[in-house]
Amino acid sequence: MTTTDPIRPTDDDARALARQLMSEATFAALSYLAPEGTPSVARVAVSLDENGAPILLVSDLSAHTQALASNPACALLLGEPGNKGDPLTHPRLTLEGIAEPVEKTAAMRDRWLASHPKSKLYIDFADFRFLRVTPRRGFLNGGFGKAFRLTPGDLGL
Amino acid sequence: MTTTDPIRPTDDDARALARQLMSEATFAALSYLAPEGTPSVARVAVSLDENGAPILLVSDLSAHTQALASNPACALLLGEPGNKGDPLTHPRLTLEGIAEPVEKTAAMRDRWLASHPKSKLYIDFADFRFLRVTPRRGFLNGGFGKAFRLTPGDLGL
Repeated sequence: MTTTDPIRPTDDDARALARQLMSEATFAALSYLAPEGTPSVARVAVSLDENGAPILLVSDLSAHTQALASNPACALLLGEPGNKGDPLTHPRLTLEGIAEPVEKTAAMRDRWLASHPKSKLYIDFADFRFLRVTPRRGFLNGGFGKAFRLTPGDLGL
Repeated sequence: MTTTDPIRPTDDDARALARQLMSEATFAALSYLAPEGTPSVARVAVSLDENGAPILLVSDLSAHTQALASNPACALLLGEPGNKGDPLTHPRLTLEGIAEPVEKTAAMRDRWLASHPKSKLYIDFADFRFLRVTPRRGFLNGGFGKAFRLTPGDLGL
């Protein structure tokens, strides 16, 4: 087993790529703790608020929404591979932090629908709410040998 | 807030869809616990072994491999949306269980390379190993209002 640290010093290219992955993402994998304390994962819709923080639109009926209400610790995986090439060489960003409810204001609703027009079918259902994710740290994997640790400041937050 | 249980009784169509998502997946989101005990998530390559259990090819240099060596609890999200339509209506499967190292036999290596030919660039690196995921339970989301809980037996395991 090699013991080389694969993490590179964070540079402006890494910061720019992380911010691009955040702004382009329309969905993500959400990692959270099930009530038993074990990890689970769900697909969620994601966008950014006016300050660049990730926003999720979730249903109160979902297991992940109920679990996050008890324990807001979570992580998001952003950056979806296309249909070609090795998915493991496609850049992706892990954000670790907490997810907390925010009010579904008219401005947030309009902003969400601009990036997720199909959400209009359910965004006004009473059980749908927004959660804001506050990242504590990020991890960018830009492909083999291109890994970076990121602070909230690196993410523009 | 509505309190309707969105879970349907598991039927053969749900079992068949879950097994299809497992057999078609070449990569997945892996949810695991960081050393701090908080959730994290990474993209991993996935295939099935001869018994239909998910196998991951991971590097010992990765944070997730090191974290799973301390705490094997994990979850996988399988089933990637295409580039069209609402990603939230695309079927996906969550598998919760444990991930444990298995020997990189010649048969497993050949089987892996049949589904992941590009892995030949790194599969023989000393830091790459297979992990087998033993699911304790599954959760199938076939789109809005089509959610099912699955046992290992439902998954063919």
